[in-house]
Amino acid sequence: MNFHVLTLFPEMVLSGLNTSIIGRAMTAGLISIEATDIRDYAENKHNRVDDYPYGGGAGMVMQPGPVYRAYKALEEKSGKKMRVVYMTPQGQVFNQRMAEDFSKEDDLVFLCGHYEGIDERVLDMIVTDNVSLGDFVLTGGELAAMTMIDCISRLIPGVLSNDDSAQIESFHDNLLEYPQYTRPEEFMGVRVPDILLSGHHANIDKWRREQSLIRTLERRPDLLKEAVLDENDRKFIRKITEDKRIDIKTDENQSL
Amino acid sequence: MNFHVLTLFPEMVLSGLNTSIIGRAMTAGLISIEATDIRDYAENKHNRVDDYPYGGGAGMVMQPGPVYRAYKALEEKSGKKMRVVYMTPQGQVFNQRMAEDFSKEDDLVFLCGHYEGIDERVLDMIVTDNVSLGDFVLTGGELAAMTMIDCISRLIPGVLSNDDSAQIESFHDNLLEYPQYTRPEEFMGVRVPDILLSGHHANIDKWRREQSLIRTLERRPDLLKEAVLDENDRKFIRKITEDKRIDIKTDENQSL
Repeated sequence: MNFHVLTLFPEMVLSGLNTSIIGRAMTAGLISIEATDIRDYAENKHNRVDDYPYGGGAGMVMQPGPVYRAYKALEEKSGKKMRVVYMTPQGQVFNQRMAEDFSKEDDLVFLCGHYEGIDERVLDMIVTDNVSLGDFVLTGGELAAMTMIDCISRLIPGVLSNDDSAQIESFHDNLLEYPQYTRPEEFMGVRVPDILLSGHHANIDKWRREQSLIRTLERRPDLLKEAVLDENDRKFIRKITEDKRIDIKTDENQSL
Repeated sequence: MNFHVLTLFPEMVLSGLNTSIIGRAMTAGLISIEATDIRDYAENKHNRVDDYPYGGGAGMVMQPGPVYRAYKALEEKSGKKMRVVYMTPQGQVFNQRMAEDFSKEDDLVFLCGHYEGIDERVLDMIVTDNVSLGDFVLTGGELAAMTMIDCISRLIPGVLSNDDSAQIESFHDNLLEYPQYTRPEEFMGVRVPDILLSGHHANIDKWRREQSLIRTLERRPDLLKEAVLDENDRKFIRKITEDKRIDIKTDENQSL
């Protein structure tokens, strides 16, 4: 998968993505990340790419020309039309399903705006997907693009090792993950729950499943609507809801 | 406001935040961003900070000790308890309101996990806020922390100039922003909407408000529930909804 980022801050994008799993995936040639400086496509000697908005108002708007030419240069190089994702609070909110959809592309272009946004005409001409990272305002699209690239890269075959891939469990069955513990067995007077040391795998699996259900109920009940639940899960949820034990802190719930 | 980031990748955090508005705010001393390498608080010669999960399963879990000591060192330096935000899919989903709340703190600690997460015991001891950037899985908490720092910094008095601050309009009245245009007046045969060149400010305001309503209806109708609407807004919404014109592309809507 080739990621192309159109940005005013190419250094920021590249330096923020060369660590850990994503850095390894680039080294292994599984993904490539390329940042184009939109300023290189300005056609004035000051490399200016923004101007005042028509109709008045504060802030500056990025001009259509440099963005258009930067994209066209990419299209020419790759020899085909590509999906162009524009980072905007006006877009659909990004989620794991969207990441899965994007991960099927060979090339993906991320267009990062700054200032008060980008002239609407060039957006109409080149953008295929308007995507928002969430309901909050950022300085520019760069951090949103970097976040999406990280998320999408993890879905490319070979990027996660078998060990890494366990992390995908975070949204397994649309439930939150159970708590994790590692050495030492006792930390600052607090012991790892006994069940995890029992070696009884069926009981451990049951406990973990119940912890996932408790957490989801406590912290993100909205996720339960689309959760994949079996009869045991439903029975357990009925039980803790009737007991009104879902407001109890996780520590105490561990005895459930 | 002082941001402290506890991470395994301090370079990544710092290099991703020194550009544009955030970089200027640091130079001006309005905010400071400091990244602590959790590995510096490992107590073994290989600087190892993770181990296998109790109870089995794939992936590695970050040990409680190094995280605890890294936080305690910060607390000692600043001489007070601080809010500790843990980046986790198990948290409340970040939004602009949460950013406003965080922006009132003098110090804010971001704890970034990697691998399969962090030992639950240390989370129970130090974390005050569990926050998720959204419903998707990332390699680590760094990009989420950087995104939140960008968003929160913009709310610190003085960080945005008067011009910049117009950007806050993105969620003005809980509506999406209207389209923006700048020079040239004609780009690739497409002209800026005539109304924006009319100089008639009341009409321009009315057109922009209607564009905001159309966009919100088309792209994020869920936002309308909490939108601040007056009688004219409601009348306009009834009109375009009855005309079933809300599915028409924005270009054509511009004549509304």
